[in-house]
Amino acid sequence: MAEISLYHPYPAAQVATWDYETDVAVIGFGAAGACAAIEAADAGARVMLFERGSGSGGASALSGGEIYIGGGGGSDAQRAAGFEDSTEDFAAYLKAAGGPCADEEKCDLYARESLAHYAWLKSQGVPYRGNYLPGKHIEPTDDSTLIWSGSEAAAPFCDIAKPAPRGHVIAHMGWGGGRPLVDILESRARDLGVDVVSDARAVALVQDGDRVVGVVVRIDNQPRFVKATNGVILCTGGFVFNDEMRRRYCPETFKINSPIGDQDDGSGIELGVGAGGDAIHMDQFFTTCPWTMPEPQAHGVFVNRAGQRFINEDCYHGRVSRCALDQPGEGVYLLLDIAHFDQPLEMAGMTIAGTGDSWEEVEGELGMAPGTLSATMAFYNVHAREGRDPLFDKKPPILTPLDQGPFVALELNFATSYFSFFTLGGLRTSTDGEVMGRDGKPVSGLFAAGRCTSGLPAWGHGYSSGFSLADCTFFGRQAGRKAAAG
Amino acid sequence: MAEISLYHPYPAAQVATWDYETDVAVIGFGAAGACAAIEAADAGARVMLFERGSGSGGASALSGGEIYIGGGGGSDAQRAAGFEDSTEDFAAYLKAAGGPCADEEKCDLYARESLAHYAWLKSQGVPYRGNYLPGKHIEPTDDSTLIWSGSEAAAPFCDIAKPAPRGHVIAHMGWGGGRPLVDILESRARDLGVDVVSDARAVALVQDGDRVVGVVVRIDNQPRFVKATNGVILCTGGFVFNDEMRRRYCPETFKINSPIGDQDDGSGIELGVGAGGDAIHMDQFFTTCPWTMPEPQAHGVFVNRAGQRFINEDCYHGRVSRCALDQPGEGVYLLLDIAHFDQPLEMAGMTIAGTGDSWEEVEGELGMAPGTLSATMAFYNVHAREGRDPLFDKKPPILTPLDQGPFVALELNFATSYFSFFTLGGLRTSTDGEVMGRDGKPVSGLFAAGRCTSGLPAWGHGYSSGFSLADCTFFGRQAGRKAAAG
Repeated sequence: MAEISLYHPYPAAQVATWDYETDVAVIGFGAAGACAAIEAADAGARVMLFERGSGSGGASALSGGEIYIGGGGGSDAQRAAGFEDSTEDFAAYLKAAGGPCADEEKCDLYARESLAHYAWLKSQGVPYRGNYLPGKHIEPTDDSTLIWSGSEAAAPFCDIAKPAPRGHVIAHMGWGGGRPLVDILESRARDLGVDVVSDARAVALVQDGDRVVGVVVRIDNQPRFVKATNGVILCTGGFVFNDEMRRRYCPETFKINSPIGDQDDGSGIELGVGAGGDAIHMDQFFTTCPWTMPEPQAHGVFVNRAGQRFINEDCYHGRVSRCALDQPGEGVYLLLDIAHFDQPLEMAGMTIAGTGDSWEEVEGELGMAPGTLSATMAFYNVHAREGRDPLFDKKPPILTPLDQGPFVALELNFATSYFSFFTLGGLRTSTDGEVMGRDGKPVSGLFAAGRCTSGLPAWGHGYSSGFSLADCTFFGRQAGRKAAAG
Repeated sequence: MAEISLYHPYPAAQVATWDYETDVAVIGFGAAGACAAIEAADAGARVMLFERGSGSGGASALSGGEIYIGGGGGSDAQRAAGFEDSTEDFAAYLKAAGGPCADEEKCDLYARESLAHYAWLKSQGVPYRGNYLPGKHIEPTDDSTLIWSGSEAAAPFCDIAKPAPRGHVIAHMGWGGGRPLVDILESRARDLGVDVVSDARAVALVQDGDRVVGVVVRIDNQPRFVKATNGVILCTGGFVFNDEMRRRYCPETFKINSPIGDQDDGSGIELGVGAGGDAIHMDQFFTTCPWTMPEPQAHGVFVNRAGQRFINEDCYHGRVSRCALDQPGEGVYLLLDIAHFDQPLEMAGMTIAGTGDSWEEVEGELGMAPGTLSATMAFYNVHAREGRDPLFDKKPPILTPLDQGPFVALELNFATSYFSFFTLGGLRTSTDGEVMGRDGKPVSGLFAAGRCTSGLPAWGHGYSSGFSLADCTFFGRQAGRKAAAG
């Protein structure tokens, strides 16, 4: 018997008995896997879905259930709140947010199809209240539908594409809409006859020549051979819990310490590369520290250890956090005056590093040279009073003078504050979810979606909330349809 | 007949006739390939070396012929100039310079073996004059042996490891010592009976099960099958001339525009990955703009478009350049006063963006808000007069006040100035030059060295001149010996 390995496909010729036979085998039961299964089943394929855990969820169920949607004139929620949103602006924003890693074809396709995707989500039973919640939120604090979820209204993005709020959130009271979102998708998949097998870990692909024809799953500690006539769809998540992979491909993440995911060990990426797939942008990751809460803190100013600002703080909290990590040293400081200070979230692990009745005093407490932080804040305040930020183009209403002492500097320490993160690099896929080989051709019979691929959320510095679920659900569907078609 | 492809090994069972048979096949005739061939032949193996160009050279021949050497108390040249250098400090510097990408085993081994490697280079006929050239140089302007070639004496590296100059350069008048270095190595390889075949491009590996047993080379537009009983050594360089690979793995390089290399199209990386090898740190690249010449310019101060400093300008020119690329916008400015201004190198493509009798005037000419650049320079000058730099710890003698007007700001524009670059990511190899699979095991029969691997120069922000040739020559030798041993 050939070796069963994540790294090398198992030769079909050596499969003695197929334990299962199906048209489409989906690996992983997060949002990507659920959507792939739904579409494949809807197209008439027999679908088996294998999940290594005991139930559905994946990283999707840990999320806020927020999906990035817009374009086409605007969704119901966007239009009701007075926001127009063109497909062109939507696509332009997606591309800018993908930075040097953007997959322009995926951006264009998703911008065109986003409203239809929203309608599809509703048709699966995902509820949306339809209203807009103003302000700056990480997730809605109530059951609202629409929030600003990225850097749309902030420089430089607002100069590239007309901004609109596009974070569409399942009707769910408070944080954590990801769980009910996956529950609804699971229920829909089961209704369509998807055969769900839990506690079943994919350990190898089966290949016949260049074509993937099945997968080996470990069930009850035994390898089971699954024949998948039309194809295998990998929806296994990223590699944030695989330290070896992080070290080889994404070592910057060792600066920070709060991985988010659900057994995201990169196994799907290994399976895909072993079968001839290409893994791209493996150095990219999302990170954020919840520094915008309580709300007054969103008015704060960030400086690095040289007392310099480095970002327009009105952009997305994740972009601020990712740019913070680029600063030299062990952390950055969030500066607040008494009018904007509140007890930081305990979870955030932000500590008070300095206080004072003047910025000069804070500067001294932080051990910075006189004329560094204090000069930065004097410059900032002069212009904030005029409603402008000549350095980074931060805009009102977040732009307010911080000149009412006493003052405080909160430290966001890379090692000890809560910088949650997950990986963004993964298999290169076509807009139809085909895994692409390094030769630029699809790997026959192999598909993938979600964070085991590089998709809409390609670039850590440009991430917006809702990108990953948009990518998972939409390109999961694409993969499901394509695989079902054989 | 199976397909001949960079991306998939050719099955040995389908080779009708072997056109050549050898013990060790080396692919690529730069310094890495030459050293691999020499060691393999020296160990008694039959060696064939295939080079796609018409002669030896590769990117090595375009270099300064500088090799990073030290430790063990110091080389002859180091000691003659009064520099001690411990193996511990050497290893610590190599690791710091590798940043999050450092391969600690390679750093430790090379630090221990560096002086023996230097002796070996001499024994191959590489001449060294043995003297030290003080100052800050990209390459020696004469035929000197030893220069400061990295950020050893600059923060933060000088606080991590006791600094010493370690750039050891072949005796060669002026720039361009790489060509004579490769010539000497070529001559040595030929003397040892290495069978060199030029105009022969490797187009596929041949695998028998998991073992690489040969290579397909294209000669006179025909595929030729080369049986390599003991192994194949890939020494094919990086992927700086492969735009598709750059886009997938290293897209930051599209900001800049002057790739350096010799047909470095990543083919060896593709061959290695196709055979089961792992490619790591593919996002990393070296870049530099020759801003330290003429010499007075080395005293300049860099600011970004916000008028902020971002680096201690006394560190290595490549580190300064790489950190410059991290700044927002299209470029950075090098600020000089009349005492330190000279006509910049035409090659550098640096243009005068602003002038003035005061820094306030320069600031205005650059369109910066009052109190940005001028405040930065006032702060800098106050402390430079005291011989210190509280922000970035730049040190004398490069640290001098810039307060004698008139003043000038030279723009280093990412798109139009000369930012030369090459890629640093590549195959993961053991300290013996074995290509390592994603499963952590060597790919049997496959070896690699030089820029088709990730080696000592792993991290763009920490590169020092001489890292790449040290890596090529030393780990090329390692691979040659290991392959010869079968």
